[in-house]
Amino acid sequence: MKKFTADQVEAALQALGGWKQHGRRDAIRRQFVFKDFAQAFAFMAQVAIIAEKRNHHPEWSNVYNKVDITLTTHDAEGVTQRDVDLARYADEAYARFSG
Amino acid sequence: MKKFTADQVEAALQALGGWKQHGRRDAIRRQFVFKDFAQAFAFMAQVAIIAEKRNHHPEWSNVYNKVDITLTTHDAEGVTQRDVDLARYADEAYARFSG
Amino acid sequence: MKKFTADQVEAALQALGGWKQHGRRDAIRRQFVFKDFAQAFAFMAQVAIIAEKRNHHPEWSNVYNKVDITLTTHDAEGVTQRDVDLARYADEAYARFSG
Amino acid sequence: MKKFTADQVEAALQALGGWKQHGRRDAIRRQFVFKDFAQAFAFMAQVAIIAEKRNHHPEWSNVYNKVDITLTTHDAEGVTQRDVDLARYADEAYARFSG
Repeated sequence: MKKFTADQVEAALQALGGWKQHGRRDAIRRQFVFKDFAQAFAFMAQVAIIAEKRNHHPEWSNVYNKVDITLTTHDAEGVTQRDVDLARYADEAYARFSG
Repeated sequence: MKKFTADQVEAALQALGGWKQHGRRDAIRRQFVFKDFAQAFAFMAQVAIIAEKRNHHPEWSNVYNKVDITLTTHDAEGVTQRDVDLARYADEAYARFSG
Repeated sequence: MKKFTADQVEAALQALGGWKQHGRRDAIRRQFVFKDFAQAFAFMAQVAIIAEKRNHHPEWSNVYNKVDITLTTHDAEGVTQRDVDLARYADEAYARFSG
Repeated sequence: MKKFTADQVEAALQALGGWKQHGRRDAIRRQFVFKDFAQAFAFMAQVAIIAEKRNHHPEWSNVYNKVDITLTTHDAEGVTQRDVDLARYADEAYARFSG
């Protein structure tokens, strides 16, 4: 899978919404904030199941009600469609919690 | 914790919505239907975390996108406020998925 | 995927160990007993992730430290290699908890 | 709960094994390495359930088969017995996976 150009990443980020460039790496990131830990971990469980299914895993961290996800495609050394697809999945999963 | 009378259970069921008497046991039950397995398991993860915290665990089964929960309080040999509270928690968790 | 004959199921059950015929259905089943709920649910999380990846899901129930898994292949209307493979995966995951 | 002195933290770290001082913060940390993502996430599910029960949550990150946990007690502005207890729980959960 081919690495996105800077313009393609920018276009993808605008379409996604809450995601942005990582800053120090060729990756995209977003922080998700939940009501509490139980909701944050339920979200992680859902994303974990799909990530493994797609064999495309996030780099993520959790502190109580916050989940930070960084996405990049190691094989392509940059952002690809696979990252954008997983980002969108995470956004849709999150939309239910943040309502 | 004291076991609910039949009238109290009935009143609780009406307040809850989708729950009903178990039929063969002094317990309440509800089936939750999700879009897919990943959502069903995310719901289970959230309920699991809270169930352990409250030290009050469901009897539950899962087949793909369906989760069946039965609640009863073994110490009281029937339905108690603890079951109603966990039922409400599950309902609130589910409300986000079914929207 | 082709349904196993009765002899093939029997041979698979002997190779697996703790699994047996379902009794009322063309399926195999096993009960897993853990130290507590947290271990039981961790086991379920691991199996859930792999089940979704293989697009082959268990019918399972949980009551506190017990997990009952029934496996069958709906498309084949019986037990297939996919069930045996998932059974073996569950056994290996369980082996660590029961040590 | 009272913050450990430097000597108390050091003694606790020696008793624990794989944990060490955080470096930049008054906290302890350890990296856990698993066979794959499914095992790493199962471990996280188990620790998540207990963390919520104890109302003491880790700061943790995951990349595929690796889980990094940092523990500190915010109220005490340092390491306390609660951190040591959760560290030991994580170690015991991990012991099964690393066998």
